[in-house]
Amino acid sequence: MFEQLGLIGCGLMGGSFALALKKAGLVKRVVGYSKSPSTTDRARQLGVIDVEAPSALLAAAGADIVLVAVPVAATESTLKSIKHLVTPQMLVMDVGSTKSDVVQAARVALRDQIGSFVPAHPITGREVSGVEHADATLYDGRQVILTPTERTLPACLQRAEEVWRALGCHVSRMSPDAHDATFAAVSHLPHLLAFAMISSITSQPHADEMLAMAGPGFRDFTRIAASDPKMWRDILRANQGEVLTQSRLFRQALQNFEDAMQTDGDQALEDLITLASHTRAHWRMGAHRKNKDH
Amino acid sequence: MFEQLGLIGCGLMGGSFALALKKAGLVKRVVGYSKSPSTTDRARQLGVIDVEAPSALLAAAGADIVLVAVPVAATESTLKSIKHLVTPQMLVMDVGSTKSDVVQAARVALRDQIGSFVPAHPITGREVSGVEHADATLYDGRQVILTPTERTLPACLQRAEEVWRALGCHVSRMSPDAHDATFAAVSHLPHLLAFAMISSITSQPHADEMLAMAGPGFRDFTRIAASDPKMWRDILRANQGEVLTQSRLFRQALQNFEDAMQTDGDQALEDLITLASHTRAHWRMGAHRKNKDH
Repeated sequence: MFEQLGLIGCGLMGGSFALALKKAGLVKRVVGYSKSPSTTDRARQLGVIDVEAPSALLAAAGADIVLVAVPVAATESTLKSIKHLVTPQMLVMDVGSTKSDVVQAARVALRDQIGSFVPAHPITGREVSGVEHADATLYDGRQVILTPTERTLPACLQRAEEVWRALGCHVSRMSPDAHDATFAAVSHLPHLLAFAMISSITSQPHADEMLAMAGPGFRDFTRIAASDPKMWRDILRANQGEVLTQSRLFRQALQNFEDAMQTDGDQALEDLITLASHTRAHWRMGAHRKNKDH
Repeated sequence: MFEQLGLIGCGLMGGSFALALKKAGLVKRVVGYSKSPSTTDRARQLGVIDVEAPSALLAAAGADIVLVAVPVAATESTLKSIKHLVTPQMLVMDVGSTKSDVVQAARVALRDQIGSFVPAHPITGREVSGVEHADATLYDGRQVILTPTERTLPACLQRAEEVWRALGCHVSRMSPDAHDATFAAVSHLPHLLAFAMISSITSQPHADEMLAMAGPGFRDFTRIAASDPKMWRDILRANQGEVLTQSRLFRQALQNFEDAMQTDGDQALEDLITLASHTRAHWRMGAHRKNKDH
């Protein structure tokens, strides 16, 4: 399907994309670049990329598909550095967890070349990062949200959908704003709460004794708190308005539970828990999407 | 080791204890009672209990070990109903997630017989409940916290430790108050936050669309939100003081993150996330306890 992938950013997400594309037989050659030369070197040793490029520009040179898998804050400078090579025949995508800022960065950086850029957010990840954890199955069975602009070329959008589908993904489209509002609620806020809860415990005198007693509920609830700090600093900052809105709504919901405990009585508390428990017990990852597909 | 287990409450926790005791060859016969006759009937059909008792008192009759596995709010009335049969040769335990209220209930209900009662909290559970999910391995490898009182008979405490160890558990002791403060932080608060977060989403106009987009981070973070509503209503109420204290500390921690996002800048936000991420990445379930053992 593709002759050459230009991979800019050889971390978990980028490396896994390269491996998945290779495994599916969809690319002949992967040319990779990472900011850190040792990462690029390691990616080549691990067979994630075939050729090391000394710059983002040279990773994109000759590629018919380019994946920008860098921290969201670095999207604009990365796209600027490859702008002169972007053509309507080239598909350029990112994998960032926020989209309004990425689209804005692409407008500034790519200008008239923005039609080749298809903003993408694959709903996957690990609490570990780095090319060592790259995994050809990371995207398999997961959702990918594409947030095209009014200037995105239909052919590029179609190729983007095809390549993600070929990797086993379920593809849907949203506007960048709707994407960011949705993921503030179901991803960014949960991360913020998990970080804050660990922070709340570590600020207490008996933190170590408390953590020693924690069980499987705590383990799963806080798994995402081990996520990469720089990446999540950038995500929370990039989507700050929506995240703060969700945090405000969450505080109100927590207040409702506390009011039920202190004032409204057992039945009010049970009703609140029952609605939450029922909602979560009947939730299935990707269920909505599957219903649409079949 | 034991002739007869009197099981009062044939749900997930009680049923799993009976199955584990049988599997380990530690009991000859299990006599069970549940408030709902259909549950007791089902427990017998599933081989979780051998004999159905028509009352808690008759489940305890002739038993040398009694497990009270009822909602924490029902502990006092349950212990009262078996008080006349409790002897120093009998070991009576519960499996409740809160301990100060259970100890208080035992003082009131058992009076001079309280020496036979060893309050126990096995750190395990499922987001599903009911005897259908009873599992002989539920306790294997998990921690059990015993919170004896000054009147607990040494022989009963020793037998309690032996039986949990025989089921593969790691046993430790705490005071009831220290137990409740600790578990408010590492278990009850996470449940409250997970309930509140689901509640916050369902209160929004696009809740269904949001939930349809949620991925594996959300899945793990909210798993405990599917827990049994009545059980968690009782736990939050029983440990309300400590839970509200932890909620207040959590709100402050969340405020620190919001201040970092809005005022203090990127480095402050990154520092907060880094400390949380580092703490969680190095946490291992039961690691503290293993260091002690070896």
